[in-house]
Amino acid sequence: MRHIIDITDISREEFDRLYSLFGDIIDHPGDYVDCCKGKVLGSLFYEPSTRTNLSFSTAMLRLGGSVVGFSDPGSSSVTKGETLKDTIRIVSGYANMIVMRNPMEGAAKAASLYSPVPIINAGDGGHSHPTQTLADMSTILRLRGSLDGLKIGICGDLKYGRTVHSLVKSLSNYKNVQFYFISPRELALPAYVRDILNEKKQKYFEVSGLDPVLPMLDVLYMTRIQKERFIDPLEYERLRGTYVLDTKKMRNAKKEFLVLHPLPRVDEITNEVDDDPRAAYFTQARFGMYMRMALLLTLSKLGETAPQRIDCDMPKCVCSNAKCITKTETYLPPLCYESDDGARCAFCDKEVSFNSI
Amino acid sequence: MRHIIDITDISREEFDRLYSLFGDIIDHPGDYVDCCKGKVLGSLFYEPSTRTNLSFSTAMLRLGGSVVGFSDPGSSSVTKGETLKDTIRIVSGYANMIVMRNPMEGAAKAASLYSPVPIINAGDGGHSHPTQTLADMSTILRLRGSLDGLKIGICGDLKYGRTVHSLVKSLSNYKNVQFYFISPRELALPAYVRDILNEKKQKYFEVSGLDPVLPMLDVLYMTRIQKERFIDPLEYERLRGTYVLDTKKMRNAKKEFLVLHPLPRVDEITNEVDDDPRAAYFTQARFGMYMRMALLLTLSKLGETAPQRIDCDMPKCVCSNAKCITKTETYLPPLCYESDDGARCAFCDKEVSFNSI
Amino acid sequence: MRHIIDITDISREEFDRLYSLFGDIIDHPGDYVDCCKGKVLGSLFYEPSTRTNLSFSTAMLRLGGSVVGFSDPGSSSVTKGETLKDTIRIVSGYANMIVMRNPMEGAAKAASLYSPVPIINAGDGGHSHPTQTLADMSTILRLRGSLDGLKIGICGDLKYGRTVHSLVKSLSNYKNVQFYFISPRELALPAYVRDILNEKKQKYFEVSGLDPVLPMLDVLYMTRIQKERFIDPLEYERLRGTYVLDTKKMRNAKKEFLVLHPLPRVDEITNEVDDDPRAAYFTQARFGMYMRMALLLTLSKLGETAPQRIDCDMPKCVCSNAKCITKTETYLPPLCYESDDGARCAFCDKEVSFNSI
Repeated sequence: MRHIIDITDISREEFDRLYSLFGDIIDHPGDYVDCCKGKVLGSLFYEPSTRTNLSFSTAMLRLGGSVVGFSDPGSSSVTKGETLKDTIRIVSGYANMIVMRNPMEGAAKAASLYSPVPIINAGDGGHSHPTQTLADMSTILRLRGSLDGLKIGICGDLKYGRTVHSLVKSLSNYKNVQFYFISPRELALPAYVRDILNEKKQKYFEVSGLDPVLPMLDVLYMTRIQKERFIDPLEYERLRGTYVLDTKKMRNAKKEFLVLHPLPRVDEITNEVDDDPRAAYFTQARFGMYMRMALLLTLSKLGETAPQRIDCDMPKCVCSNAKCITKTETYLPPLCYESDDGARCAFCDKEVSFNSI
Repeated sequence: MRHIIDITDISREEFDRLYSLFGDIIDHPGDYVDCCKGKVLGSLFYEPSTRTNLSFSTAMLRLGGSVVGFSDPGSSSVTKGETLKDTIRIVSGYANMIVMRNPMEGAAKAASLYSPVPIINAGDGGHSHPTQTLADMSTILRLRGSLDGLKIGICGDLKYGRTVHSLVKSLSNYKNVQFYFISPRELALPAYVRDILNEKKQKYFEVSGLDPVLPMLDVLYMTRIQKERFIDPLEYERLRGTYVLDTKKMRNAKKEFLVLHPLPRVDEITNEVDDDPRAAYFTQARFGMYMRMALLLTLSKLGETAPQRIDCDMPKCVCSNAKCITKTETYLPPLCYESDDGARCAFCDKEVSFNSI
Repeated sequence: MRHIIDITDISREEFDRLYSLFGDIIDHPGDYVDCCKGKVLGSLFYEPSTRTNLSFSTAMLRLGGSVVGFSDPGSSSVTKGETLKDTIRIVSGYANMIVMRNPMEGAAKAASLYSPVPIINAGDGGHSHPTQTLADMSTILRLRGSLDGLKIGICGDLKYGRTVHSLVKSLSNYKNVQFYFISPRELALPAYVRDILNEKKQKYFEVSGLDPVLPMLDVLYMTRIQKERFIDPLEYERLRGTYVLDTKKMRNAKKEFLVLHPLPRVDEITNEVDDDPRAAYFTQARFGMYMRMALLLTLSKLGETAPQRIDCDMPKCVCSNAKCITKTETYLPPLCYESDDGARCAFCDKEVSFNSI
């Protein structure tokens, strides 16, 4: 564990150690107020994100460390045309770790190629957001005691929701997890995520309605459905109420039920639900901050390592993804890797094609 | 004293304790550099305000605490449509106290309904700005030794100036204060503030010119008159010079005179006056920072309390104020209270009407 | 040494002490983590500048101090029409030192007239940026061991580049420095800088091509040539390649060669050069941060001094420079001084004219 680009950069053992540290921080916060004294977190937010930004900053400050950076591209040198590489080279000379959010997919991976200090991905477009998954996992574990045997419903936009894919992959490593995927058919889970579950022999069910499965669930993970995702606006109007959790629906849930949400919510959970003790989404946000403390503290001990020069063994590959960081940062090497269904871009994980020369 | 929404949230005894702490911080700043170590102030500025923002941030940092938040709505999740309630629920999970400025009247009160940690109002539209009054009071007290028997002139826009109303209310609790209200007739003090003075049997005079009263004053509190407040532009041109304090006018003031101003000034005090030792407005800004240190230190010791669920006993009331926070945050309960002249909104203190159902 | 407005505010002895402190901080960073505890740096960036801003903030935080301020004029009270003088008076009441960047020439000098705490100029338009020169000097000294006998090439826009003029002036105080000025004729070094070298009997050569002189250099200081500086676009296209440093050109440089650049670069140094161990520009950025630590630590010990009232002995002088701070901050006294070629503005150092009254 060095750069945290994707949730797969954290092994099961590493997660267990982080979780254990997370618990100790919650129980004895006073023991940690000087742990990162003299350390600096570089915080590079190329697009605004109050929650994630505040969560990381608070985490670092609560460890006694400092934070420098920007929360908005407008006040950064991006406007002066500096490359990501140069920004990373400079900031990694000031800071002991760097957390970054960037609208381009693969941006954090690109940064990691040039950074002697750990890079943490706080969201790279629709690609990956690993610390959200850490927050989700540790919240369930802390509030429920175990992930084995969990019956979890995941509701909303399962096709595009990056937090969902990452959570499903992570939970698939635990024993006898049962998944209930609740979404309109056009926003169903992508095949590659289902393939993971099939391979690991985890049970899952795909349904279009929340009501029938609600009474069976230990945890319901709600996400927002964006109107723009629907091809047919009438379909949106017909379905929207189906995926709204209200106090009436809550009556049918278990007593030991938990509602999670990555936030921000819009109206998929009504305000009245907040007063129900089973509503755990604000606790989840708080636990996310504690998990980030555990992560920052762990990474702060790694020190600097000169970035390795990477040679590309498939120099003719071209990423097909218009939102990939390789499209804007053109000096990046065309790295790719072999997957079951062909070569993929090492930055954004999308398919690559090959130039014939 | 828990949430500081309005100056009335601080009792006379609490003010005396704050003032005593304020004095000790000025005299022994070194004793306080670790007092808020490990504590975090959430700083939520929904509209920019350099002075107030810097004053609070510096205060917290000088106590050894940390500050997280935003200083501009553009870089906050407000742009993603999150409710005030959700923002407060999340940030109160990160921070030990929250200071907020918001253009809507009653916003800080609304935040306090959902916050387990103390909320400090740093300005909610034209409604309230209690720490400015703390700064004003403690500056006069520190520089003059007492508030009893004070002869204070208050000059400028007395009709709309929230800092003025709040200051007058606070000073009315001291013995034999004499008020000289200096303003054009159309910007005179509202009746409800005069009523307070009448009730407390404090002497006050309403005049339209600064010159005649200046020699009698111990303190002159200057404020800006905004051109937009005048119905008649010619009237503005005719009067503007009357309310400008310059070195010539200063010659007629007492030797032990003090000039205060909440700042920023535009041209109601000329630059030359700054060199006069009786010009106390920059000292006032500095003392405001020390008073905020006293306040933050006091509040930081309160810990968390689950917010109380509030039931509304007049559920059909509707606030009449278009700038009230209840207009944009529609989930808020329609809280109101009885006053001498009818029911008033518990958020913005304006009149309410009642829906017949 | 109190206010650092221009590199000439730091004497040779003061530079030597700063450099010695800089070296000790690099070698023993742990000794300095509490040196500015309880101290506050006011950071006033009236125009965005990520690198300089982050460099100063990190420097202060690594000393255990705090930073308050703004990084963008949009979120400052500038938008409310406050004068620079009032902002400085207020912020100097909060902070122990102030660093400021402002697009108007002479702004830092203007600020220093009203500040009881040290002002550090982090760039005032095209006028001065002294801490960049400190970074440049200390990087060469640290990596090469001495400035005496240095053969330095300076390439790019030598006419308008403020960092270049400041560096040349500083290096001219060392023994037997040989300068190679590499630029198109229309962007050659201004006469007043050459005059300094002539006066100090330093050798210098002005050439239009990089290739012939490269093998002789110990250090190459690259800067950007802005397209807008060329009168003839064809001339720009013809010359641009000449001033691009690439791996091919690097082959002709000495083994103990150093490449410096104030950053950000655009394309005047190719990305491939970064992997050459002689590319020192990212180290230079890092050393700049350490030099700023040395400067902030030194200034933090000075305490407050009431600003002196300055009387102008040439009250009728008017600065001819449209970008001078005296044009926007009209209350400033019309200060000027005598130079070899006539009276100059004490703020921006440009020529003044005299009003006949």
